[in-house]
Amino acid sequence: MKVAVMGYGTVGSGVVEVIESHREMIRKRTAGGSLEVAHILDLRDFPGDPHEALFTKDFNDILNDDEVKIVAETMGGINPAFDFTMKLLKAGKSVVTSNKELVAQRGLELLRAAEESGANYLFEASVGGGIPIIRPLDQCLAANNIEGVAGILNGTTNFILTMMIEKGMAFDEALKLAQDKGYAEKDPTADVEGHDACRKVCILASLAFGKHVYPNQVLTEGITNITLEDVSYINSVGGVIKLLGQIKYIDENSIAAFVSPAVVYHGSQLASVNDVFNAILVRGDAVGDVCFYGPGAGKLPTASAVVADIIDCAKHTARRKIFGWSDGAEDYVVDYRSTVKMPFYVRAKASCADVNSAFADVKYLSRKGQPSDEVAFITDVMTENELKEKLGGIDVINIIKVTNY
Amino acid sequence: MKVAVMGYGTVGSGVVEVIESHREMIRKRTAGGSLEVAHILDLRDFPGDPHEALFTKDFNDILNDDEVKIVAETMGGINPAFDFTMKLLKAGKSVVTSNKELVAQRGLELLRAAEESGANYLFEASVGGGIPIIRPLDQCLAANNIEGVAGILNGTTNFILTMMIEKGMAFDEALKLAQDKGYAEKDPTADVEGHDACRKVCILASLAFGKHVYPNQVLTEGITNITLEDVSYINSVGGVIKLLGQIKYIDENSIAAFVSPAVVYHGSQLASVNDVFNAILVRGDAVGDVCFYGPGAGKLPTASAVVADIIDCAKHTARRKIFGWSDGAEDYVVDYRSTVKMPFYVRAKASCADVNSAFADVKYLSRKGQPSDEVAFITDVMTENELKEKLGGIDVINIIKVTNY
Repeated sequence: MKVAVMGYGTVGSGVVEVIESHREMIRKRTAGGSLEVAHILDLRDFPGDPHEALFTKDFNDILNDDEVKIVAETMGGINPAFDFTMKLLKAGKSVVTSNKELVAQRGLELLRAAEESGANYLFEASVGGGIPIIRPLDQCLAANNIEGVAGILNGTTNFILTMMIEKGMAFDEALKLAQDKGYAEKDPTADVEGHDACRKVCILASLAFGKHVYPNQVLTEGITNITLEDVSYINSVGGVIKLLGQIKYIDENSIAAFVSPAVVYHGSQLASVNDVFNAILVRGDAVGDVCFYGPGAGKLPTASAVVADIIDCAKHTARRKIFGWSDGAEDYVVDYRSTVKMPFYVRAKASCADVNSAFADVKYLSRKGQPSDEVAFITDVMTENELKEKLGGIDVINIIKVTNY
Repeated sequence: MKVAVMGYGTVGSGVVEVIESHREMIRKRTAGGSLEVAHILDLRDFPGDPHEALFTKDFNDILNDDEVKIVAETMGGINPAFDFTMKLLKAGKSVVTSNKELVAQRGLELLRAAEESGANYLFEASVGGGIPIIRPLDQCLAANNIEGVAGILNGTTNFILTMMIEKGMAFDEALKLAQDKGYAEKDPTADVEGHDACRKVCILASLAFGKHVYPNQVLTEGITNITLEDVSYINSVGGVIKLLGQIKYIDENSIAAFVSPAVVYHGSQLASVNDVFNAILVRGDAVGDVCFYGPGAGKLPTASAVVADIIDCAKHTARRKIFGWSDGAEDYVVDYRSTVKMPFYVRAKASCADVNSAFADVKYLSRKGQPSDEVAFITDVMTENELKEKLGGIDVINIIKVTNY
């Protein structure tokens, strides 16, 4: 079976590599069919690449090749990936993708186009890299009402936080190390400000609850405000700080979804997820907590998820896989700050007397070198708006959510 | 769509409960179809049960009901579950099961019968209770050559080991607590001797490598020899003892598969799996390590996996799911003792001089209250047969494998 790859960057070249290095395995998995890369679309030149004969700069070479039934879109970004994917799906070709930005922003339109033409649009690689999560969430947990999802969805920030927690590196130093290791981009904004995690939250929320959630509906806070002082206070109560994407079922017509640093206590499966690894915890009403762990990025892990989707398409030429969701609504994602109750970690320039007059019951934390005018504490369960109100007159340094995952 | 449930024990009654309490969710997931429990087969009486009208003691009531297309087999054991399942599959009805013993012993015959009649035989609940593992292993990791699998597959033994490690309880005391809590049977043999884990290893190995592995091919060692002294030595090097099922790819025509206590170092995702939880780590050549964590047993978790399989059958009435494997061979599972190299933990009545004369390089461990004539150490990497040879003259108290997962 002929396939095409659009975008020959890290993931795209990995897709070609996995297809070529796993011929025998793929032949078995597709019950005898084998995969042949027929075209690679990229505007760049790759002189000397062994696949030189396959390169094209013209998308129409793929669109018009009737023998190509499955296309891997590993270009990233919205344009021209959206336009290309739409044309392919309308032409009845299946598309598999690692492009979380595109699925989060325009997945609904693309899934509808796939439905209309009888093609597949699969995106296992768009969340958690190589971690199987889309099928397990959709199929294996089908007999559960999902109560919530919490995930460490960005490897770069998890690496930075791990270095801060385990090596005592400051944020800037840890970021530089992540850049030196190739985990973080020169401009690390999308990672450290939580935008990447936000897109993955949108995809998970759309799939778990059946309505499209868009990135602008997900309040997103990155890790740039986290300091070693916070790490130290939270360590003193047996916890770690993780950048979490959280999704909570509210009722039939609403969910909460947000990305932020969060305190995770040891004992949680999420607490031991270190370095660039990702993990996604799903809480179902029947199954309880299940957790999926693995490499959230990287050439071959992500490529292997893309190729697994290709194999699935190859096995389902006659029949569509049912993955999808319907349209959301403007008020479908509610503001978690007024609806979701949780404990909070608060660090402030204040006295215990100030704190005690504002809060009925808090747990105080301590750290080495704590200045006499600084307090840190963990509150009772309340909404973020209630917290802010209580904190009215207090000179707050940092606030971090505390999870119950 | 009418379904039947065979066996109204913990899991079977959970299946009925999940179907009834998740009507709306299931209707959505099956695109409008709903599930109706038409018969419940059990030889026992359940006076006053709200489903009294559905009970039957006659299997033929299910076999001969043409409207019943999907049957959940939650009876356990080989007979009469095998006979019933075979008749149902031959009649073109799909069967879903939580019966690991049956799948491990006779899965191949049943899968073939399903293939011939165009029915499905699905068994997500047979490994890891509510943890999604069968589909992820088969589909999501399809683009990987699996190098190995390691799993904490039995909740009862994991609870006992957790109590020994965290609370310093002796084995007998921890077993009694497990029995008091309902985690362990009065006769705990199947759990503590590793037989239950062995069956799950067979299913995972069959699926991961495509050839049936039978329980008698899997060397199995339980946890009854583990003492608090071993726990203490291993704690001193930052490790814990877990009962692991391990499967290793050797070559195209052979694998190793075994169940035994094993040392897992902190930092591994398996080390933090406590109490009755299960976890399965899969090592693929492209994806690296991925790990699936969750409740390995329990009424609703296991039932939710059975019902997810029912939903999948309901969605695939026209088409079979491809899960399956071919026949194995007597020499397909090789003796790991002569083929798999690993480090070992050894405790012995011996002197360091004895040990040093037998081993080139070992790491000594220590514990509180260590007698002067006792040593404990971790060896270099070698096969178990090589180890036994080196230990020739030494008075060994215990040997535990050390994993690299």
